[in-house]
Amino acid sequence: MDGTGTDIYARQNFGGVIGMGQSPALLIVDFTKGFADPDVFGGGNIAAAVAATVPVLARARRARMPVIHTKIIYAEDGSDAGIHCLKSRRLKLLTRSNPLSDFVPELMPLAGELVIEKRLPSAFFESGLAGILHARRIDTLLIAGCTTSGCVRASTLDAMCHGFRPIVLTDCVGDRALGPHEANLFDLGQKYADLMSSHDAMAQAEQIMQVVA
Amino acid sequence: MDGTGTDIYARQNFGGVIGMGQSPALLIVDFTKGFADPDVFGGGNIAAAVAATVPVLARARRARMPVIHTKIIYAEDGSDAGIHCLKSRRLKLLTRSNPLSDFVPELMPLAGELVIEKRLPSAFFESGLAGILHARRIDTLLIAGCTTSGCVRASTLDAMCHGFRPIVLTDCVGDRALGPHEANLFDLGQKYADLMSSHDAMAQAEQIMQVVA
Amino acid sequence: MDGTGTDIYARQNFGGVIGMGQSPALLIVDFTKGFADPDVFGGGNIAAAVAATVPVLARARRARMPVIHTKIIYAEDGSDAGIHCLKSRRLKLLTRSNPLSDFVPELMPLAGELVIEKRLPSAFFESGLAGILHARRIDTLLIAGCTTSGCVRASTLDAMCHGFRPIVLTDCVGDRALGPHEANLFDLGQKYADLMSSHDAMAQAEQIMQVVA
Amino acid sequence: MDGTGTDIYARQNFGGVIGMGQSPALLIVDFTKGFADPDVFGGGNIAAAVAATVPVLARARRARMPVIHTKIIYAEDGSDAGIHCLKSRRLKLLTRSNPLSDFVPELMPLAGELVIEKRLPSAFFESGLAGILHARRIDTLLIAGCTTSGCVRASTLDAMCHGFRPIVLTDCVGDRALGPHEANLFDLGQKYADLMSSHDAMAQAEQIMQVVA
Repeated sequence: MDGTGTDIYARQNFGGVIGMGQSPALLIVDFTKGFADPDVFGGGNIAAAVAATVPVLARARRARMPVIHTKIIYAEDGSDAGIHCLKSRRLKLLTRSNPLSDFVPELMPLAGELVIEKRLPSAFFESGLAGILHARRIDTLLIAGCTTSGCVRASTLDAMCHGFRPIVLTDCVGDRALGPHEANLFDLGQKYADLMSSHDAMAQAEQIMQVVA
Repeated sequence: MDGTGTDIYARQNFGGVIGMGQSPALLIVDFTKGFADPDVFGGGNIAAAVAATVPVLARARRARMPVIHTKIIYAEDGSDAGIHCLKSRRLKLLTRSNPLSDFVPELMPLAGELVIEKRLPSAFFESGLAGILHARRIDTLLIAGCTTSGCVRASTLDAMCHGFRPIVLTDCVGDRALGPHEANLFDLGQKYADLMSSHDAMAQAEQIMQVVA
Repeated sequence: MDGTGTDIYARQNFGGVIGMGQSPALLIVDFTKGFADPDVFGGGNIAAAVAATVPVLARARRARMPVIHTKIIYAEDGSDAGIHCLKSRRLKLLTRSNPLSDFVPELMPLAGELVIEKRLPSAFFESGLAGILHARRIDTLLIAGCTTSGCVRASTLDAMCHGFRPIVLTDCVGDRALGPHEANLFDLGQKYADLMSSHDAMAQAEQIMQVVA
Repeated sequence: MDGTGTDIYARQNFGGVIGMGQSPALLIVDFTKGFADPDVFGGGNIAAAVAATVPVLARARRARMPVIHTKIIYAEDGSDAGIHCLKSRRLKLLTRSNPLSDFVPELMPLAGELVIEKRLPSAFFESGLAGILHARRIDTLLIAGCTTSGCVRASTLDAMCHGFRPIVLTDCVGDRALGPHEANLFDLGQKYADLMSSHDAMAQAEQIMQVVA
């Protein structure tokens, strides 16, 4: 982001390192058919992020790392549509019976993996997720999903606010447009989360889990 | 944001209009000395945003529109510092006794105007603000403050999630760097809020208040 | 509650009147088959409360008053069971596929009536309900359901905390045991809600809706 | 509570044991001068609960157990008073400048102990407390304070909902009237928390902390 003045962030001591805690989990945000489809909510580098997440999910399962999947679900009759649906009118199409709400086939949850249905961008906003994770003593979240400028950013911010250590997996998050993708990675890395490649983050998380186990 | 692929947002029906409701209030986010000072957390177009907010605040008071001011306050002994302070190490300097935590002189709250102290970016995150505003039946928030990419964005998103109609006053919000300022206005306008000049927004809000009164 | 010293509440100015606002809704908490069945979670005066709620629901529908129904739903695989399920081990049986999770036949939701699935006592705790109701400008909740000492109390308290005016319909709430029922009505009436018979509350709410309409 | 039908709770498998986790803290709810004074909000067994908490606090400090103190604080100008203050009109007297808002002298916080100011019954409702505690990996809360039927109950319920293991110290909680005190201990023990004497709870917590250290 040259020429946009962002060097001031370093001078003001932003961009510190949070670091991982003792108990990581993998949070996969909204990788559903609707967000993978460029004609609905997809496009940009979302398909690449889905592809990069496939081996990460396999690796998390081998390491017995807890996995959380989120999706947007609105009531069939529109009774729970709020202000958000005024801004993004198509959102309320994402009902439980709509195939666009299904997870992409390559990232289907297994039994025992937590699935959070939500109406709003953040995986944490009024979803009950924070309490469930805290009851399991999870303290670190490796975050994949889409979109970087939407549900990933909102979920990452709220993860931090709820006391988790958020690590955004830079190759596993995507957006329908690259400008917002890059701009939001900048904000997240400066203020709310550590940015790591999935390879580096998974290697570190696996090591933590072995030490603890 | 040419060349960044953002035209896809229009094709996917983002950027709808929320519109004002029946009961607007003015929310001024974190215009404190620390955020006005380029050597602390300020810089960029924040000073201009402060200046533009002065007549807006006067106009709101004349119209008897409710006003809410927010600031970040951490405990003197650091006992309530969380993950956020790992990323932005200077934040915990913002204690109640630190003059940097004072509101800028030109935007001091009057008695009866709500002052919300918060530890995190969003004016709403665990601050009690949503319930207080709802008890007064406020349904629309005209939002000024800083930074666009930080506390303004987080507050605007949460305002929407809590069921308010957020209107970002584009001339009254600022950031320490223009790149993030512009990028976040784009995201906010596409997904979470209406973008309006303070002049247009105040004129419309005043009209609403006259009709209701 | 003679002999228990509760006269001190009056001396300390508890038990004030909240009063109705301008936009009431009917909130029916957890009247599902599992909570109606004395062999599962039911018993006491719950059946009587269900019966008393039937005409109230009909009346609300005639008045076009918004109606919200809540139920407890846990994931089939137990992945979202938390601390609550350690205390009440049977709770996690309440999955979507379990007929005990169905609403009692006489109080089935109609299309367009909001159904909130929750994991915890309060209808508001991390359920998204507050934001949805606020977006519709609902400010008053007439509360029926069960149990008085559990989900009704928790929902009523949170309704107040979120800025709603809670009215507990005394004949439409029930508990598996009368001691806790009475004790919790006392607490609610002293500190968190107005207590009214369903007849009086509905009559007043209808009048408010006519004036506004 | 004989004759009130509460034996049904055992038959329905309520009253399970939560147990302590790995990292306990002591939460002291609202032991301020106003709640210790029988002419303001005190009375009943609150003075006895304060007295019983003094050695518990000393013991927690010796064991280096984290301690959290809460109090109610409303703005001097009444700008943040909500529905709760309609029900309990005196509450809004509890401003920061009012000596009634001071902690009782025998339970004053030390530097480094978290002090949470709140407007509502629960220590957790929109106070930021859950996130702060989770960031420190605290998973168990030993709860003292007042009143049993008010802020203690609300805080205990929310502690559970946020994924903590709540232990109510039965000799360290009090109410202005014994009827509500007993009734709420029953509800808490059946549904939301373990009930323990302060002696037993502290002994177990100290043992856990030694094993972990």
